[in-house]
Amino acid sequence: MPRATAATQSRSLTEDRESDLEGFVGYNLKRAYLVFSADFRRALGRHGFGPRQFSALSLIVQFPQITQSELARKLGIERSGLVAIVDELEGRGFVARMPVPGDRRVQALAATKDGRTAYLHAREVVRSHEETLLSDLTPDELDTLNGVLRKIRESEA
Amino acid sequence: MPRATAATQSRSLTEDRESDLEGFVGYNLKRAYLVFSADFRRALGRHGFGPRQFSALSLIVQFPQITQSELARKLGIERSGLVAIVDELEGRGFVARMPVPGDRRVQALAATKDGRTAYLHAREVVRSHEETLLSDLTPDELDTLNGVLRKIRESEA
Repeated sequence: MPRATAATQSRSLTEDRESDLEGFVGYNLKRAYLVFSADFRRALGRHGFGPRQFSALSLIVQFPQITQSELARKLGIERSGLVAIVDELEGRGFVARMPVPGDRRVQALAATKDGRTAYLHAREVVRSHEETLLSDLTPDELDTLNGVLRKIRESEA
Repeated sequence: MPRATAATQSRSLTEDRESDLEGFVGYNLKRAYLVFSADFRRALGRHGFGPRQFSALSLIVQFPQITQSELARKLGIERSGLVAIVDELEGRGFVARMPVPGDRRVQALAATKDGRTAYLHAREVVRSHEETLLSDLTPDELDTLNGVLRKIRESEA
């Protein structure tokens, strides 16, 4: 039998120990989000949607004539980061940039018919992916989770 | 009074509407995590720690001789993404790479005395930042949140 290396010794010691990190809510939120985003990509990837493309298209469908600045604000991301996402949605024919009457510096966004159709289909896939991921939670746990996440988000304002 | 533009009309219409997105747990997890990470950077930034540097150092302090592969696995990230983080921690004198007896291909990581001191200090700052962010939650809500995040993470395995 080979001698245990430092690496395998370390591994066997650490396997069952709780780390400090798992005591931090921020870390646990991130890890839970990573589970969601990985599963999202598995479910939506063949439809060409990552979480960010999906979120942006969702808001553009729901709020016609939204500007890029307003969309970035709603998504909580930098306007610079949004441009590539909107470019991609426009390149796929899902979104059109339109002039805003009275303000030449600003462009508004609108979903095309294809964009709306793609969104409505993707939304069903996302709902089904979330139902599966959350199937181990009780209705009370799910309510508390949603309420708590909202409280945390509102604490930002 | 200037005429309302499409942009301002859109804004006034959308201000109070709930979006589809807010019905998705994945999206709400992400937004709650963004609140945590922004506040984390405010609290820890002047100590030179982002969430990823902090998480990596935490595990290296807690699991001496951990290998980079094992560390990446524990953090749920790609090994390639970890290298820059470890390089940075090593450059600051917080972490040393060491040979693993019996396996020349592998290096183990250990925190230096400075690294341990910096971690213990940063951990207190993180605890205080989390206490503030979570101060609106009841103890029951906090317990449920932790339990639910754990369930979601375990659903991955």
